[in-house]
Amino acid sequence: MAKQKKAPRPKAITPKGFRDYFGAEVSDRAEMLHQIAGVYHRYGFEALESSAVETVEALGKFLPDVDRPNEGVFAWQEFDENDTEGKRGDWMALRYDLTAPLARVYAQHRNDLPTPYRRYAMGPVWRNEKPGPGRYRQFYQCDADTVGTASMAADAEICAMLSDTLETVGIPRGDYLVRVNNRKVLNGVLEAMGLPEGEGARDNVLRTIDKFDKVGEAGVRALLTKGRLDASGAYIDGVGLSEDQAEPVLAFLTSKADDVSKTFENLRGAVGASAIGGEGIAELEQIGELLAAGGYGADRIEIDPSVVRGLGYYTGPVFEAELTFEIFDEKGRKRQFGSVSGGGRYDDLVKRFTGQAVPATGVSIGVDRLLAALREKGRMGGRATGPVVVTVMDRDRMADYQAMVAELRNAGIRAEVYLGNPKNFGNQLKYADKRNSPIAVIEGGDEKEQGIVQIKDLILGAKIAESATLEEWKERPSQFEVPRGDLVAKVREILDGQGV
Amino acid sequence: MAKQKKAPRPKAITPKGFRDYFGAEVSDRAEMLHQIAGVYHRYGFEALESSAVETVEALGKFLPDVDRPNEGVFAWQEFDENDTEGKRGDWMALRYDLTAPLARVYAQHRNDLPTPYRRYAMGPVWRNEKPGPGRYRQFYQCDADTVGTASMAADAEICAMLSDTLETVGIPRGDYLVRVNNRKVLNGVLEAMGLPEGEGARDNVLRTIDKFDKVGEAGVRALLTKGRLDASGAYIDGVGLSEDQAEPVLAFLTSKADDVSKTFENLRGAVGASAIGGEGIAELEQIGELLAAGGYGADRIEIDPSVVRGLGYYTGPVFEAELTFEIFDEKGRKRQFGSVSGGGRYDDLVKRFTGQAVPATGVSIGVDRLLAALREKGRMGGRATGPVVVTVMDRDRMADYQAMVAELRNAGIRAEVYLGNPKNFGNQLKYADKRNSPIAVIEGGDEKEQGIVQIKDLILGAKIAESATLEEWKERPSQFEVPRGDLVAKVREILDGQGV
Repeated sequence: MAKQKKAPRPKAITPKGFRDYFGAEVSDRAEMLHQIAGVYHRYGFEALESSAVETVEALGKFLPDVDRPNEGVFAWQEFDENDTEGKRGDWMALRYDLTAPLARVYAQHRNDLPTPYRRYAMGPVWRNEKPGPGRYRQFYQCDADTVGTASMAADAEICAMLSDTLETVGIPRGDYLVRVNNRKVLNGVLEAMGLPEGEGARDNVLRTIDKFDKVGEAGVRALLTKGRLDASGAYIDGVGLSEDQAEPVLAFLTSKADDVSKTFENLRGAVGASAIGGEGIAELEQIGELLAAGGYGADRIEIDPSVVRGLGYYTGPVFEAELTFEIFDEKGRKRQFGSVSGGGRYDDLVKRFTGQAVPATGVSIGVDRLLAALREKGRMGGRATGPVVVTVMDRDRMADYQAMVAELRNAGIRAEVYLGNPKNFGNQLKYADKRNSPIAVIEGGDEKEQGIVQIKDLILGAKIAESATLEEWKERPSQFEVPRGDLVAKVREILDGQGV
Repeated sequence: MAKQKKAPRPKAITPKGFRDYFGAEVSDRAEMLHQIAGVYHRYGFEALESSAVETVEALGKFLPDVDRPNEGVFAWQEFDENDTEGKRGDWMALRYDLTAPLARVYAQHRNDLPTPYRRYAMGPVWRNEKPGPGRYRQFYQCDADTVGTASMAADAEICAMLSDTLETVGIPRGDYLVRVNNRKVLNGVLEAMGLPEGEGARDNVLRTIDKFDKVGEAGVRALLTKGRLDASGAYIDGVGLSEDQAEPVLAFLTSKADDVSKTFENLRGAVGASAIGGEGIAELEQIGELLAAGGYGADRIEIDPSVVRGLGYYTGPVFEAELTFEIFDEKGRKRQFGSVSGGGRYDDLVKRFTGQAVPATGVSIGVDRLLAALREKGRMGGRATGPVVVTVMDRDRMADYQAMVAELRNAGIRAEVYLGNPKNFGNQLKYADKRNSPIAVIEGGDEKEQGIVQIKDLILGAKIAESATLEEWKERPSQFEVPRGDLVAKVREILDGQGV
């Protein structure tokens, strides 16, 4: 008889494009989202957690970011239990953002929800895309939207909230700027240029403007007219406008002046007699006034027509939060940290369900980028501190050690007893090191008899080991012998000294 | 030419078995998980967030709860991009619990993780099951596990942590009990009875014991022997043991005495000379000692062999947290709230990946049940309080109203300006009502001129409206006229008076 072949062991790996998050990666993010939720709540926004799974029908195809090569979702076909002939049911999919589910929720529950409906949502979204370095198929989004009002007060409020949020999580004033633009002003410019609506010329101009951040004023001028050589030496065709025709677009993009009233004057010049352009400028003026009334000056939020991100997607005001402090990129060059959040006003999101257009405006925070920024600023995730480790010198006295950690925890101190094999004491200290423990507590038989414990300052110990030649360090004790009754107080004292 | 038919509008519904969570449902849960994470962190546990998507291969089929009719997962086949001939790739699935991913993560990262590895995880899981009333296909789990140690100190620590957790989220001591049993003791009983290992007799006894909570001592006795009539009148066959044979099982289940040393004496009687049984009792004794050393007495954690939940799944200690206060069930009968958490020691979870058995112990909190319990205790989700609503009396003075909400928010008060159509003032008050607003602020042209604002106490107003005949209420003003400069102070005073 042939031997039965054993099934091979399963591979312990995440699916391609997915990853796990450990320790401070998880708790730092949770803490940041907790702080953001606090600000949103203070602004009257209500939490919403929609299901991660939607019908493909409800989800639709509304990925705003058209640059992505593959706008796929993770989808599967439901098995229909009522049909015994093996008929399959609806297609379901994981949500790819938090906006499409908001549209579904608002359409479904609009009679029960207040109007306007202010809601925030935080959670993972999934994209069935080719993964790349730093690009995962599951990531967090954090959105706030106001549905059901065309009032510019809703847009102004979201800008103010974004400013408050950044300061609350730890980006100081002066290190960020919320910049506001308006798609209607651009439409006015295109109208003033005599470019017809619909597919074609306007879209070409929009696509070109989108490169403003990358290629700058001269680049956009070339691309709007005859074209240009790109960095690789390839020739990029131009849109074919004359220099004169291109001028209003460039005037729009560069209209920002030191004085906001001068900015508006420039914009009025760029849109000429266009009604939609005038409307856009009036909207920006309203937002400016409302923000000024709330005490939000140009040091926090400014009107800036050079904001191009999202102009192709949004229908009215567009906002972006940029972090203005400098970091070194992977090539060692200094550059601004850049955008961590964007948003704007959009229409027709709910219309596909109900037939009625519902005005809405909202903002999305790039959770991972903001976390990275906070790490850059040293506001988060320096040396993540592990627990105080109570070592086990005598396996039979586990109860004594358990009593110690209970005392420490009751005093609010993070602490654990070593639970591995206690035979080799060196392993216990290696474990404490792997855990980033600030302190190890030791109580052998002798100490027990004398009613004392040894407390080892591991952070100081590491410093001494690093700079063993420095007399200054050598003379500082990193291990203390204290009466058992003083355990908690001494640990607290050392932790305070470590600034933990 | 035929008219082009428009595609029908998509239905705005969640897929069957899924639901949305609104407002306090979301924020109460987030707050509770935040508190729980705090306790776990203090105990030295590290956060882990694994991906929601796993390969079906890694996930395996390890649903612990064998009573579920359909242990399905939501799965789909990956498209293999490297194969242009339409070949499909791996099967992927949404995780159905947090334990299977822990096994995969530990196997994958074991060289980088500390040993033992204490981790907690919180998040949604998905089950492709027939939905029912109150039973959804996406729900939250909240787990803590210690992987890589056989020490009973790990089990004791988890029981202590569970006790601390319940008190931290708002279940007072005396309203809960963590009960501990041990599968090995039961194995000892079965061994003492002479029941052979492997499929068959022992499994039948285990399945019968599982009904102890439902049918009680007499019911289990009948089911172990000749069988019994169930409530519907159907005859349920018995396991076929003699009365004498059934006795040790019943002695085990009812061995709990007022004095824990008496409980242990009873258990020793039930297991007789069985080595495994003796081991189980020694483990329980160790857990008891360690907990006593940490100050956890029988008012919080007790050894109780009548805990049967999980005995079939776990391999050593088994724990369960029960809420002991009484509630009224849907039929108006008083009953104990019951279990909100369970766990125990399990082996071989990692073995399917690595071939090596790794001991582990852990606990899972029923997030939704614990939230329901907190609501029962009035610790959460009474009248969820909405924001202060600043009404709009004059559309052109939106900036004034914006300044008011900014002042209120800067003072930490939840506030919003009315953003709907302000024409009908009644609609603004209806909106405030829908938002559960505690206060409405009113500043019309006259007030503006006089430098005052009207502040309406909506909660008091509602009380007056409810009991309009009571002179007491009538005489109390529910609307106040205060100088504009006193807005924040007066709102704060009213909120404090409302106990908000």
